[in-house]
Amino acid sequence: MQGLSCGTSNIVGVRFAVYPMADNFVEIIKGALKDTDTSKVWMETDDVTTCVRGRSEHVFDVAKAVFVQAAKSGTHVVFNGTFSIGCPGDSEGDTYMSENDVRLNEEASRKEAVEAASHFALYPLNNPDYMQVIADQAALAEEHGTFTKGVHYASRLDGDANDVFRTLEEAFVRASKSKERAHVTMTAAVSANSPSTKNK
Amino acid sequence: MQGLSCGTSNIVGVRFAVYPMADNFVEIIKGALKDTDTSKVWMETDDVTTCVRGRSEHVFDVAKAVFVQAAKSGTHVVFNGTFSIGCPGDSEGDTYMSENDVRLNEEASRKEAVEAASHFALYPLNNPDYMQVIADQAALAEEHGTFTKGVHYASRLDGDANDVFRTLEEAFVRASKSKERAHVTMTAAVSANSPSTKNK
Ligand SMILES: [Ca+2]
Repeated sequence: MQGLSCGTSNIVGVRFAVYPMADNFVEIIKGALKDTDTSKVWMETDDVTTCVRGRSEHVFDVAKAVFVQAAKSGTHVVFNGTFSIGCPGDSEGDTYMSENDVRLNEEASRKEAVEAASHFALYPLNNPDYMQVIADQAALAEEHGTFTKGVHYASRLDGDANDVFRTLEEAFVRASKSKERAHVTMTAAVSANSPSTKNK
Repeated sequence: MQGLSCGTSNIVGVRFAVYPMADNFVEIIKGALKDTDTSKVWMETDDVTTCVRGRSEHVFDVAKAVFVQAAKSGTHVVFNGTFSIGCPGDSEGDTYMSENDVRLNEEASRKEAVEAASHFALYPLNNPDYMQVIADQAALAEEHGTFTKGVHYASRLDGDANDVFRTLEEAFVRASKSKERAHVTMTAAVSANSPSTKNK
């Protein structure tokens, strides 16, 4: 899809973590990062979360790749993060906005068949029409075939991880285009290999 | 602190999960739920997240308790969730708003000494003054002694888990009182027992 980024404006960020529910979680996370090409994004990690910033295409490409590469082993893994655009005063990492739109991890992510379930929610800030923006993106997810149902405070998606992340990205990008210089955030929990009985 | 809930209005909810990074994660989660009294909240769990709703006091009481009871063993555990108030059309669970304000898990949570680090962010919806509301709550966290620094898209808190959750609750409640019938959400990742070197 067409991204948000033109020249040096509209930097997108995500603050996230990937949680492998396993004793060897450090090894799984390090392996996933090693298998992900992060050269087109600004990235900073501390002991709580990781922040990735750049063009929307590359932020979603990297977020999906880290999740898929961690989940491909079959371990129960959850991605949990908040995407953001338009936060006032935000400029660090702007240099990465000059990257082209070729996604570095798409091919590798497409090779893995990871079933995913997600709860996501959009928060268009400073927008009186925000409830309509949210409703429009839930309708979009239905068109994608990934939408399962609404739950309290969120929408549920199910499907291949590549399809789930495609819906997340498109919902976020479309919501960001709903208003000039929009400030929009989107939370997403994406789970793979859960031992729980699915309750769709 | 004084809660938000009077009679049957202003129900608060949180959609969250607790992630123990261990092979026996199911056992840890089940143990934490067993050690938490959830009788004053509406609660629903699926394979991705858990939703808890009721008076603000009890929603925060239960969220903290599940995290603390899961973390007390020393396993690396992360709480990741989004608190919400004022979502239009939201009524399920209203019956729980008639509970009194006595917190059922506070005493047990206070007994555990769990060091926690958190990234949190407030999203006041449909409010042109939202950036000021956010700045005011970061200032509040400084008064509490839990604020460490701002990071991209979030504020970092460090301290005993009880103190960290107290700051989260007060920031959320105060932001919710900043406007009539406010719709406010707050994301929080809270980590304990991380093996990573702290980068405060
Ligand atoms: Ca301790």
